[in-house]
Amino acid sequence: MEISTITEQSSLLPTLPPGKRARLHRLLYEFGPGQGTLMLLPIDQGIEHGPRDFFPNPASKDPEYQFKLAAEAGYSALACQIGMAEKYYPDYAGAVPLILKVNGKTDIPSSDDALSTCNATVEDAVRLGADAVGYTLYVGSPRQGEDLVQLRQVRQDCDRYGMPLVVWSYPRGSALDAKGGQTTFYAIDYAARMAMEMGADIVKLNMPKIDPEKDKLTPAPYNELDVSQEEAIRACVESAGRSLVVLSGGSRIDDLKLLEQTRFIMEAGGSGVIYGRNVWQREWSEALEIVAQIKESLLGSVVRKP
Amino acid sequence: MEISTITEQSSLLPTLPPGKRARLHRLLYEFGPGQGTLMLLPIDQGIEHGPRDFFPNPASKDPEYQFKLAAEAGYSALACQIGMAEKYYPDYAGAVPLILKVNGKTDIPSSDDALSTCNATVEDAVRLGADAVGYTLYVGSPRQGEDLVQLRQVRQDCDRYGMPLVVWSYPRGSALDAKGGQTTFYAIDYAARMAMEMGADIVKLNMPKIDPEKDKLTPAPYNELDVSQEEAIRACVESAGRSLVVLSGGSRIDDLKLLEQTRFIMEAGGSGVIYGRNVWQREWSEALEIVAQIKESLLGSVVRKP
Amino acid sequence: MEISTITEQSSLLPTLPPGKRARLHRLLYEFGPGQGTLMLLPIDQGIEHGPRDFFPNPASKDPEYQFKLAAEAGYSALACQIGMAEKYYPDYAGAVPLILKVNGKTDIPSSDDALSTCNATVEDAVRLGADAVGYTLYVGSPRQGEDLVQLRQVRQDCDRYGMPLVVWSYPRGSALDAKGGQTTFYAIDYAARMAMEMGADIVKLNMPKIDPEKDKLTPAPYNELDVSQEEAIRACVESAGRSLVVLSGGSRIDDLKLLEQTRFIMEAGGSGVIYGRNVWQREWSEALEIVAQIKESLLGSVVRKP
Amino acid sequence: MEISTITEQSSLLPTLPPGKRARLHRLLYEFGPGQGTLMLLPIDQGIEHGPRDFFPNPASKDPEYQFKLAAEAGYSALACQIGMAEKYYPDYAGAVPLILKVNGKTDIPSSDDALSTCNATVEDAVRLGADAVGYTLYVGSPRQGEDLVQLRQVRQDCDRYGMPLVVWSYPRGSALDAKGGQTTFYAIDYAARMAMEMGADIVKLNMPKIDPEKDKLTPAPYNELDVSQEEAIRACVESAGRSLVVLSGGSRIDDLKLLEQTRFIMEAGGSGVIYGRNVWQREWSEALEIVAQIKESLLGSVVRKP
Amino acid sequence: MEISTITEQSSLLPTLPPGKRARLHRLLYEFGPGQGTLMLLPIDQGIEHGPRDFFPNPASKDPEYQFKLAAEAGYSALACQIGMAEKYYPDYAGAVPLILKVNGKTDIPSSDDALSTCNATVEDAVRLGADAVGYTLYVGSPRQGEDLVQLRQVRQDCDRYGMPLVVWSYPRGSALDAKGGQTTFYAIDYAARMAMEMGADIVKLNMPKIDPEKDKLTPAPYNELDVSQEEAIRACVESAGRSLVVLSGGSRIDDLKLLEQTRFIMEAGGSGVIYGRNVWQREWSEALEIVAQIKESLLGSVVRKP
Repeated sequence: MEISTITEQSSLLPTLPPGKRARLHRLLYEFGPGQGTLMLLPIDQGIEHGPRDFFPNPASKDPEYQFKLAAEAGYSALACQIGMAEKYYPDYAGAVPLILKVNGKTDIPSSDDALSTCNATVEDAVRLGADAVGYTLYVGSPRQGEDLVQLRQVRQDCDRYGMPLVVWSYPRGSALDAKGGQTTFYAIDYAARMAMEMGADIVKLNMPKIDPEKDKLTPAPYNELDVSQEEAIRACVESAGRSLVVLSGGSRIDDLKLLEQTRFIMEAGGSGVIYGRNVWQREWSEALEIVAQIKESLLGSVVRKP
Repeated sequence: MEISTITEQSSLLPTLPPGKRARLHRLLYEFGPGQGTLMLLPIDQGIEHGPRDFFPNPASKDPEYQFKLAAEAGYSALACQIGMAEKYYPDYAGAVPLILKVNGKTDIPSSDDALSTCNATVEDAVRLGADAVGYTLYVGSPRQGEDLVQLRQVRQDCDRYGMPLVVWSYPRGSALDAKGGQTTFYAIDYAARMAMEMGADIVKLNMPKIDPEKDKLTPAPYNELDVSQEEAIRACVESAGRSLVVLSGGSRIDDLKLLEQTRFIMEAGGSGVIYGRNVWQREWSEALEIVAQIKESLLGSVVRKP
Repeated sequence: MEISTITEQSSLLPTLPPGKRARLHRLLYEFGPGQGTLMLLPIDQGIEHGPRDFFPNPASKDPEYQFKLAAEAGYSALACQIGMAEKYYPDYAGAVPLILKVNGKTDIPSSDDALSTCNATVEDAVRLGADAVGYTLYVGSPRQGEDLVQLRQVRQDCDRYGMPLVVWSYPRGSALDAKGGQTTFYAIDYAARMAMEMGADIVKLNMPKIDPEKDKLTPAPYNELDVSQEEAIRACVESAGRSLVVLSGGSRIDDLKLLEQTRFIMEAGGSGVIYGRNVWQREWSEALEIVAQIKESLLGSVVRKP
Repeated sequence: MEISTITEQSSLLPTLPPGKRARLHRLLYEFGPGQGTLMLLPIDQGIEHGPRDFFPNPASKDPEYQFKLAAEAGYSALACQIGMAEKYYPDYAGAVPLILKVNGKTDIPSSDDALSTCNATVEDAVRLGADAVGYTLYVGSPRQGEDLVQLRQVRQDCDRYGMPLVVWSYPRGSALDAKGGQTTFYAIDYAARMAMEMGADIVKLNMPKIDPEKDKLTPAPYNELDVSQEEAIRACVESAGRSLVVLSGGSRIDDLKLLEQTRFIMEAGGSGVIYGRNVWQREWSEALEIVAQIKESLLGSVVRKP
Repeated sequence: MEISTITEQSSLLPTLPPGKRARLHRLLYEFGPGQGTLMLLPIDQGIEHGPRDFFPNPASKDPEYQFKLAAEAGYSALACQIGMAEKYYPDYAGAVPLILKVNGKTDIPSSDDALSTCNATVEDAVRLGADAVGYTLYVGSPRQGEDLVQLRQVRQDCDRYGMPLVVWSYPRGSALDAKGGQTTFYAIDYAARMAMEMGADIVKLNMPKIDPEKDKLTPAPYNELDVSQEEAIRACVESAGRSLVVLSGGSRIDDLKLLEQTRFIMEAGGSGVIYGRNVWQREWSEALEIVAQIKESLLGSVVRKP
């Protein structure tokens, strides 16, 4: 089945109030690859997974590694939790924009009823000179009710302070597992739409995986679609509407695949990528090298004005 | 058994404070079919069901489709969540009234203990120039206690700002399933009364389904009634008292049936309809056509002054 | 066993601050039968049971019926939820005092862990010109902790605004079922005391039922008492101390029994009755007739000054 | 095993801010037996157990009985809930100090996860002219987390208003049952320390019971101690540190035992007793008589300055 | 496997605002061993374990014992709950700095879903002249969501008042038990990172235990590491980044081992120790003696500037 691209992607920036617009402008044009793209560096694995993600590149355990990388390799922004924002960001203030991630959790308990509670506030972000706020929404979790109430507070504070809102929109939880799990086109597509409807300015999505066994469990018409991964990600970007989309990298994958999916997301109308382990699980010079290639892929594949 | 129509439906408008009255006047007389009727366009399926509802008409995936339809086909108002209200409504402000839906949820977890939490506030609605606020109440859910507390806040804020309150009054939850489920006359009738008693200015009801097997499970005297669907909907409208009633369409149905039930609700003393998928799951010109027919049915069947 | 009447019932009014005193004076002397009695009309069955209670007298489905009855038959006050108070009371303001019932629930879920949450506030009552506030307390429910916290807020607001507090004191919940259930002398007696200790000005009690099978399950010494229903209700009134007691009617019963228990409650030192279905499940003229008889019973059996 | 008395009990009063000191001075020196002792009259059985406690002496059902007793027999203070404080205390204001008990619950549900929620506030106590506030802490309950948060608010309000804090420190809950239950030396000792560490000025303790079967289940070294009840209570008083200790009476016991344990607590460094049923479950003159004997025991056994 | 020390430990003090810096300066240089080290005395066992910890040295049951010890043996600070801070600290104000521990719980219920709720606030700490605030975080507990929200409030108040934040970072709960339990390198390492990311200025860690059976249950790569305890603690200190690390003692252990692990933590870049029972479960002169040895070990092994 062909899913026709029906949307002329509408621009986000003209709809935004001045505070959001000024701050997003920094990320889209003044820092990073520019030309309206986003190359974001996430450093929240220490809380989400623990220090185990740092073993492949021991240097990455020291937050200085990522902060320096973000500044020197020319990122649009880096995203971290409050502790690092307070203790490491001061030395890099002005050199690279900060996205304060305001919620988070360890992966020790099961994620059957996942909820990521807020350990910081939008006011913290304003105080620290951040240019955006990050929030993880677990779409479809049995505790979605609490999640949406919590997000409301963050969204309203973002409106109040003119702070752009980046939503890590992750399908999750036991109910979703019975409908094909968190990686299906159905799940990512729903997550994209949810984030937009809840007020995200930027949506972080995972790459949908086409897996017939899992897709069979999804609701109609997803259970009968015959789409490529490329078509799927394009549909997800459309579902996010005016919200900008950045693609998540997840655990480390092959370089060619990484660059390929970078092009996919841009050609689908996305705005960029947010790759963490795929970058900083490399030694310094290798990290700089892959960043250069990612930049090239981003800039060479832009199809949309933010 | 005949259920006699006992109520001379009393008017709502004279009981309302000036803010509510001014705003409702826009919906009832200045926009839409007018003459005191309501033709509302809901665009909350993206959060309630996910993007799957947009597949029958791919164009409908872009919120612009529904916003444009609401404005050009002449709706009384459109109803959507905060994200779309912030990013799409600005271009249509003044062209069609906005009902900000302040709660919502995905349909991924079971609705055994349904609760739809608030992702926006009445203050958001005021800020965005909305003319009403929408709230989904799950009547009879095991979590009804939380629901009613949450609704209290919304209702009080509506009183404070003179904002009309539209209650999506849906019977729901495991306890109700044991009493015939959410579609019986008993369930819809209870939902109508609850909404009125909780302070709704407008109540959105689903069409009751007459099903002897399910009706047997309902409490007396509902388990022994012999009523037609037409009689049932009339009784439900009466149960809503002074609150205005709009009928929900649900998933797409046959055109004749749609128009027939539109007449039913009007002849029963209702004020209009709120049809979503039945309208925008059609290509543009077909959508305009059915809207014209709905309008005609509405205006031709008015029996009550709002 | 004889339970001696040990209390000279102390007066309530002299202990009250001026706001409560002024408002209660209206109910006790200026409206209704007067002479310090209370004849209250409850209209909360629509939320507590649904519209099914209106079938025996279809006219009663329209709230106008009860509002008009309360005003024309000369009630001390009527009690209803916020929705009806806002949409129907305005026409009767000044004609009959209003008790705003601030909590309520449907009877669809089980009452094993009953809790009736607040859908309105004392400030709503002040705004609407009410002369008292009503609150349902489920004595002994597993969720009693939440109930008492909620009641604290209502009680404190009543203290703040000089608003009399009427407590519907109902024994309820799974733990009580194992101790004889909600209708025993033990249960009603406990409920009477609880309401008084929690700050009720007026307590609404159900008539205790003497049932040896159930009484055996109650704690000592209740499991060994040999008392009449008349003695039991007298003891319950004593347990309420200075708080005034009104007797609830429940579902419709025989007229003679209704009048007899009206005398019982007054002779026991109670202040009146709160009968709903027993009155408005009758056609208009019959309703007026039974009201006249109830008044007569009340005034003829007064034994206490409020 | 001998548990040596290691503490020179330090004085409490010099550590207190002026408001607490002034109010406690009334209880310790101006009312009651004086000389730094405490003889408190609790009247919270009506909520904690229901009216059943009043049957042995029907006169006690009328709160006047206890209020009059507290004033005429010369108590240091009486402790009751908000309802009685509002409706009965006014007549005795100035005649006997008031301890407003701010939390409470019925004993109808199981106490496996006991929590006593607040039905009144410290501000209520200030408004009513109380000289202290009472709070029941269920030490070791599975809901201890909520309990401690709730107590924090009460303690902070006491600090803010200079209001002495009396903690009814009761070991309770299913987890404790597996460790010997609520009456062991282990449990009472823990409760004494908890109350002190949480900020109690006065701790109400139950008398520990020495029961080898239960003590075996307690943690080391309690499971191997060989102590007398007298030694146990002395150790508990020490565990309360600078906080004053009053001993609870519980259900009615033999007079000699009552007076003996009164001496025990005083010789152990306690400050007095809080006996309810052991006093007011007696006819008036008998009650006065036992009070006189208790006073004598208190004053004859003082070993500590408050 | 060798885990290379990759971090030049960055200094904490230069990143801190003036209030935190002034207060920490007192602990690091003006009191205790000085030279940027921390020797802290915890006195929270009375609430965490009950009085049983005081039996080995009965004198320790009187809080005066530890307060005097902290002042006379020259500690950097002592840490206790609100009750002792209010009733015992006044006599030692100025003589030894206070860390107010703001949360705590008994160990009576299971710690499967551990959460330590706040019984005091940062404002209490400010009022009492404390130089830091202590908070127990149960890393990985099923209730981590509540924990992190609670910690947010404490952290924000610390930011507001310039109060240093000490996090007792303890892996805990049923989910962790399935991954090797609370003493593994994996668990302690995660806890160290979590505390830093959540904004701790000082992290209290337990000594990791190398146990192949348990390590096998931990996630990769921890399940395959072959590290010594010394290497493990060094890695944990690195995971805490700029946050200072103090090592916890736990129950009493052998003196040589105690001093050895004191050197371990300092050589690993830690800042000191927080030993309670290992010190005050000794008679006065013995306690002074071990303190002297601990000081010597601390000062002789410093490798990092705070």
